[in-house]
Amino acid sequence: MNIIISGAYQTKCGELWDKSLDDLIIESIDGSLVDASLEKKDIQAVFLGNKMASQVSDQNHLSALITQILGHCVPVVRVEAACASGGVAVSQACLALESGQYDNALVIGAEKMTDLPIDEISYALMHAASECERDAGLSFVGLYALMAQHYLQTFGATEQDLAFPAIKNHEHAKLNPNAQFPFSISAEQVMQSAMVADPLRLLHCSPITDGAAALILENKQKKSNQVQIAASVQTGETLSLSERKDITVLESTKKAAQLAYTQVGVSPEDIDLWEVHDCFSIAEILAVEDLGIFPKGEGFIGIRNQECAINSKNPVNISGGLKACGHPVGATGVKQVVEVYNQLKGRAGARQLDNPKVGLTHNVGGTGGTVVIHVLKK
Amino acid sequence: MNIIISGAYQTKCGELWDKSLDDLIIESIDGSLVDASLEKKDIQAVFLGNKMASQVSDQNHLSALITQILGHCVPVVRVEAACASGGVAVSQACLALESGQYDNALVIGAEKMTDLPIDEISYALMHAASECERDAGLSFVGLYALMAQHYLQTFGATEQDLAFPAIKNHEHAKLNPNAQFPFSISAEQVMQSAMVADPLRLLHCSPITDGAAALILENKQKKSNQVQIAASVQTGETLSLSERKDITVLESTKKAAQLAYTQVGVSPEDIDLWEVHDCFSIAEILAVEDLGIFPKGEGFIGIRNQECAINSKNPVNISGGLKACGHPVGATGVKQVVEVYNQLKGRAGARQLDNPKVGLTHNVGGTGGTVVIHVLKK
Repeated sequence: MNIIISGAYQTKCGELWDKSLDDLIIESIDGSLVDASLEKKDIQAVFLGNKMASQVSDQNHLSALITQILGHCVPVVRVEAACASGGVAVSQACLALESGQYDNALVIGAEKMTDLPIDEISYALMHAASECERDAGLSFVGLYALMAQHYLQTFGATEQDLAFPAIKNHEHAKLNPNAQFPFSISAEQVMQSAMVADPLRLLHCSPITDGAAALILENKQKKSNQVQIAASVQTGETLSLSERKDITVLESTKKAAQLAYTQVGVSPEDIDLWEVHDCFSIAEILAVEDLGIFPKGEGFIGIRNQECAINSKNPVNISGGLKACGHPVGATGVKQVVEVYNQLKGRAGARQLDNPKVGLTHNVGGTGGTVVIHVLKK
Repeated sequence: MNIIISGAYQTKCGELWDKSLDDLIIESIDGSLVDASLEKKDIQAVFLGNKMASQVSDQNHLSALITQILGHCVPVVRVEAACASGGVAVSQACLALESGQYDNALVIGAEKMTDLPIDEISYALMHAASECERDAGLSFVGLYALMAQHYLQTFGATEQDLAFPAIKNHEHAKLNPNAQFPFSISAEQVMQSAMVADPLRLLHCSPITDGAAALILENKQKKSNQVQIAASVQTGETLSLSERKDITVLESTKKAAQLAYTQVGVSPEDIDLWEVHDCFSIAEILAVEDLGIFPKGEGFIGIRNQECAINSKNPVNISGGLKACGHPVGATGVKQVVEVYNQLKGRAGARQLDNPKVGLTHNVGGTGGTVVIHVLKK
């Protein structure tokens, strides 16, 4: 795959009370167009990741809204795959460009979550789980808590070990001006925060976030200073946890990673930075194992030992991740690609790594029912 | 474009009280696999069109549900584009196959609409209109009524002229065992049916429908007895009617048709049958003009003069169309392709045309904000 990224933009993440979903979409479109030195009329196709507009804004037909914003008869494809909606949007744009139907595509991930009361947004988020899980009274944190319980019992990790992904990602977020929570948290604070679903506490959980991100992709030959999407892989997994053989593994992540590594001809050792889907602390631990950074059952040790911090060998979630940069659900998969792109372009500001060449993004829907992996290279 | 259709299936359309959304999806998957002589494990990717599951079934993450049904880590992409969701799913499948990422794809359009009270489903359908249209108190039939009023005034058509698409499509539906309303209606019945939004009456309107359809597409060289998708074009248009220069034209239909005709090298005279988006009578009249079957302002005359009936030169909506076969919104765009495929394969039963070679499907989201056209050839 040889798709070039020619522009990228991310809004601030947070409780953006003064911004509507439309505002966030418009800001991300304008920002990415400026970055790519293109105008609205130049865009040939648009791919949008959004999960919740029909519940939060009573708005389903976002595709036509974006056509209206762009001001010409451009086709807009809205995809929805729970919290992987953004990643699927990037992936569908890549495939459409590879088909030759379009020369360029604008990808938008956008989510406005804070316009609903918290109990309503929690209920709406559970639309991404299976009917039997909902009928059983499970919440999303409850589902991930089941995975965490089984992980702790199987691999001998402690509740304290669950704190380290969150602590690390908050440290990273201090370097990101767009982050929702740019401040430190301590292990004590995590352990003393409210229990949400045993063993997951409040500070193990990613927040409710408003935000958007956009990319402009082109199907053309890569120049030396450009960044390409070298692999775009989507996989699936059962909707219900109860249908899986082992809930300490996401087979969808493992399969997507294997396919992506093969397509690009790399192994985990070749990846310079990772943006992984840390919706809950346990999710980052599973991700670093399923992606092959650490063997199964040892991810929590690696993260605890600072082996995924910004200045380590395997920097994971330098943006702050979903936990501390924020998790505007349908935007997250696009935001991850924007972050890695900015790093590969050398414009990541205070959190810039020293000349990274390859980065990977990992976006998960539900409890792994959809997974999308992108590998970016410069 | 050279995508082969190797299997197709459509469920019955109607108020299917004994079937859930899952049941409809499973029936359409099983039916298309049998038709293509494939097994679940053979499917490499799935594209799903669905508009309303998050409102009707509290289910967003349908993609993972389908992965679970298929029983392996297959990627599933759910697209949503109001009533064009099905058409967009077919189109995205075509582009993904053309990209070379997959050799085959299963396309599903599925909608369960009758599980909500009628006022709630009407409100949910209006999520596909713009915020300002909703705030103004407009319903979908109200929006199309504005288009109809303007059409009648501009081109001298009468209210009686609006009846003929519905009368014709009900006659066609009598030949379709899957149709929701397989019975005749008279001009008098239409004119005496309840006024919904002046000038559109109840019998000008397509119904609330449960139903599903599925296709299996393959990226391979066409054999002589096979049917190919020769063009798949999506376009967009403003979300709000008020943003358009002329509401008696769908620019999105005109542009999509022009692109499709150019890609295939055909003109409207070469098309042997048409499945067009007749969500309201006025919509079919606009469609037959914007697609180039009749000059602007003369579509109503052509339909009135029986020039779009099953045994005429330009058979339109032989299935019964949205009006009489039914309009399971997210399934409609897939169902249209299934219908044309069955005609080109010579297996359309009582409504089979004499050796048709080229057919076109026209699927509309909202009031034209999204349009998808497919051209099928044998």
